[in-house]
Amino acid sequence: MVKRKLETCFSPALFEKDQHTESIVVIIDVFRASSAICNAFENGAASIIPVSTVEEAKLYKSKGYLVAAERDGFVLDFADFGNSPFNFTRETVGGKTIAYSTTNGTGIINQAAAAHTIVIGSFLNLSSLAGWIIDQESDVLLFCAGWKNRFNLEDTVCAGAFAGMLMGSGHFSTICDSTRAAIDLWTIAEPDLPGYIERAAQRSRLRDKKLDDCIEFCLTRDVTDKIPVIRNGVLVELNSIS
Amino acid sequence: MVKRKLETCFSPALFEKDQHTESIVVIIDVFRASSAICNAFENGAASIIPVSTVEEAKLYKSKGYLVAAERDGFVLDFADFGNSPFNFTRETVGGKTIAYSTTNGTGIINQAAAAHTIVIGSFLNLSSLAGWIIDQESDVLLFCAGWKNRFNLEDTVCAGAFAGMLMGSGHFSTICDSTRAAIDLWTIAEPDLPGYIERAAQRSRLRDKKLDDCIEFCLTRDVTDKIPVIRNGVLVELNSIS
Repeated sequence: MVKRKLETCFSPALFEKDQHTESIVVIIDVFRASSAICNAFENGAASIIPVSTVEEAKLYKSKGYLVAAERDGFVLDFADFGNSPFNFTRETVGGKTIAYSTTNGTGIINQAAAAHTIVIGSFLNLSSLAGWIIDQESDVLLFCAGWKNRFNLEDTVCAGAFAGMLMGSGHFSTICDSTRAAIDLWTIAEPDLPGYIERAAQRSRLRDKKLDDCIEFCLTRDVTDKIPVIRNGVLVELNSIS
Repeated sequence: MVKRKLETCFSPALFEKDQHTESIVVIIDVFRASSAICNAFENGAASIIPVSTVEEAKLYKSKGYLVAAERDGFVLDFADFGNSPFNFTRETVGGKTIAYSTTNGTGIINQAAAAHTIVIGSFLNLSSLAGWIIDQESDVLLFCAGWKNRFNLEDTVCAGAFAGMLMGSGHFSTICDSTRAAIDLWTIAEPDLPGYIERAAQRSRLRDKKLDDCIEFCLTRDVTDKIPVIRNGVLVELNSIS
């Protein structure tokens, strides 16, 4: 059996756009876009429109959409709410379509637009998404959003958690050093993930801005079985369309 | 006491050129440019001229310089020799000035040209260089050459070895996730470095090209106390000019 190729990209600045047109690309932005999107579908959101620019987000607001938009953790003044998963409650998002723009997360969804399939990964949907990926046939890229093009620990260890499960299935091989490193870092982080992430730069940034109430939630595994997937440029729940 | 800032950059594509003009930048290209340069000075080379392009290397050859030049591990046809540290013997390089161009290593020396100081780091000069850095006053960037802009394991664990020693001195602080990750990966790699590096992509590439005779040497700590430093665009031995 030919094994499927598994690769990991640590930053949008390292993304090789011609390399992954046949791959499933897993977008990982643990603090906080990936986690918020997974939680939105867990709470019944109909769909999420990823929006790169502030101007585009404003346009959706003027058209009457619910708008989630933040830069550097702060809610933009015209938006309904920001980037905390706790904003995406059943009362607020159930049955709704949301236009969503964040510092790092939504931009890279557009960057990966040429991929075979784009899904959103976080600790919240780890087992469900890994299980689905294993049942497909494509190669896989784990694409970490990072922070302003920098490597970050939280997305990397989440990629390592996915990579460990995929490699463990026996269906994948890798010659990607980033994947090896992510798995090794996950091995170190797993026994005490919140303790490990205490050292992450973004952990400190969120604490400084008093935006860290959702950290523990974002690091919790398997809160949902929902798999957000891009269809025609819009995020929808995978099982709602299969 | 204000602590000095320690950062790590995993790839030339992640280098933030305006951030490090006051820093000591340590260029790390374990397989094989950094190791070859350290070994050249151990064997008495007078100086090394880093050359980015093949054309420039040819020009130096036409002027009568000794030229070391390779691309993807293979010696260029006009060059005297390539990138293996074993080429830089006392007989060949003693007292000589060498023009040196490699796939990854020499290009990033030029990329970091605005830094306060640029030095070459490898496992070969680990303790000597770390000790010297600790005695200076500047912030530090550990700059991994990577491979064609990709993250690689060998440069990262070497950066982790340096970072561990610098942090251990008590003179540095870091809020850089790359530095944290490098230290963690070095912790995993250290007990059996050659075994750890067996999994690295470049290890396989060098084996495939039968260029892996120098791997064990490149992973050996403290073979030399020489510290190659850039002065006026040329690499010289630090102690020869102090």
